[in-house]
Amino acid sequence: MSRTATTPLTIIKVDGFSSFKAEDFLAAEEPLEIRLGYGSAEIRQQKSISVTMRTPGNDFELAVGFLFTEGIIENIGQVASIKHCNGLHENVVRVELIDGLELDMSKLERNFYTTSSCGVCGKSSIDAVKTVCRLQEQAAGDLQFSSEVIYRLPDVLRQNQSIFNNTGGLHGCALFDNSGNLLLAREDVGRHNALDKLIGASLQQNLFPLNNYLLLLSGRASFELVQKAYMAGIKIVAAVGAPSSLAVEMANDAGITLIGFLRGEKFNIYSGEQRISLKSYELVV
Amino acid sequence: MSRTATTPLTIIKVDGFSSFKAEDFLAAEEPLEIRLGYGSAEIRQQKSISVTMRTPGNDFELAVGFLFTEGIIENIGQVASIKHCNGLHENVVRVELIDGLELDMSKLERNFYTTSSCGVCGKSSIDAVKTVCRLQEQAAGDLQFSSEVIYRLPDVLRQNQSIFNNTGGLHGCALFDNSGNLLLAREDVGRHNALDKLIGASLQQNLFPLNNYLLLLSGRASFELVQKAYMAGIKIVAAVGAPSSLAVEMANDAGITLIGFLRGEKFNIYSGEQRISLKSYELVV
Repeated sequence: MSRTATTPLTIIKVDGFSSFKAEDFLAAEEPLEIRLGYGSAEIRQQKSISVTMRTPGNDFELAVGFLFTEGIIENIGQVASIKHCNGLHENVVRVELIDGLELDMSKLERNFYTTSSCGVCGKSSIDAVKTVCRLQEQAAGDLQFSSEVIYRLPDVLRQNQSIFNNTGGLHGCALFDNSGNLLLAREDVGRHNALDKLIGASLQQNLFPLNNYLLLLSGRASFELVQKAYMAGIKIVAAVGAPSSLAVEMANDAGITLIGFLRGEKFNIYSGEQRISLKSYELVV
Repeated sequence: MSRTATTPLTIIKVDGFSSFKAEDFLAAEEPLEIRLGYGSAEIRQQKSISVTMRTPGNDFELAVGFLFTEGIIENIGQVASIKHCNGLHENVVRVELIDGLELDMSKLERNFYTTSSCGVCGKSSIDAVKTVCRLQEQAAGDLQFSSEVIYRLPDVLRQNQSIFNNTGGLHGCALFDNSGNLLLAREDVGRHNALDKLIGASLQQNLFPLNNYLLLLSGRASFELVQKAYMAGIKIVAAVGAPSSLAVEMANDAGITLIGFLRGEKFNIYSGEQRISLKSYELVV
């Protein structure tokens, strides 16, 4: 947990019977600008590619994860260095790519979700993601997670959300193996940032490929989160909250198992049920 | 509620004792592209300014609210017309501005949160918002909401979230007067979209100024949401979830009352407590 991930504050707590001043902790939110250095050894170029509101901490992971899930880099070997600009300025991260790497800057345009064929729609959004993804398809044919393992995961994530436990204000996500062991957990005020941090950390720690792990999300499953999971080759996504229609469509199209409303000993399966092994008395009839 | 705001689907429901197929409804998520038509009567220009993942329905409100909270338009009188492109394509909205309106397209750059003075930081983000806001400061000196009224509001919002009640998957927001009467409620898979729809609807229905109403948010209060509230002149924001550090900083700086963790007969006051009237036995000691 970063020193600056929480901010102390005096607040007024009101309830039906009393009111009092109290010390509290807030989840920190600050802008992070990601700058990219690229080009040849002779001519280096720089471009500011993103400003996102994030919880300070794990900024290099966030930058790497963002570049990867947006399709700008294919692997961690394409990153030559990462540093905070000027050493002191904690809200600007500069990523230097290796010399001579060819970049398609059009991927950074805000028209990411549109294709020229049919305008903007859910189908074209999915097609656009699939065009951008350069990861080799990883087989995960016989990957299985049992319902009993899955039931336990939200509690494990919660225990590992140190900032959330202090503030009640953070999105979390985590990777688990099919014995229920936690590999990594990350959190952020922005759920897309939490997932970029997780994927960036996985790249930096050489945990790829991720096709044998389950991704747990503390909140809802949107299209954007399933898209990022797809870019990282993840085959099972489980959310504590509800999925959106386009998240389910993307999961179906990409062969991803999608679980939602994972609470207590209950969950819903929206796609890819072959990867979930149920207890004998749970079998679908 | 739009016909397309929910999507039916057959899912598998698993719990500790059984598993069965069931019909379910998902919150719909589709991209919306907003295109702007502007210029003089002689030379019209067009620009695609945003693609956002939203729940279909209230798209014109979303477009108008987005343009307003981003500082592109000052009032609804600057909008000449709004339509879905080609009549049939529901995911592209074209907003025609009145002839001759001068636009500062730099506001649409992703560097919105940066100022040249000190690079990117929380302080500069707040300054940038305050520079963009062109709303006349509205006095709300003696505006007061009682704790008893505030306790009741989340239930009223929930009852008015028709899509959430079907899907469990939507962010909601609403405006209330200080007797606890609901003026407007809107919902969306994206919380920023829900608020843009609410503010866009308020513009279209001539409810401005909004300085005498309370804005209720079904989730957490981020910087972005407090920023949009500020752009609309709202003086009291209450969230069911936690606020971030920068949301509190923005509220403090802008003179906005910010409430969080509004659940049952409890809430926290993070700024501007003078607008909250407590019961005699609740008074802060």
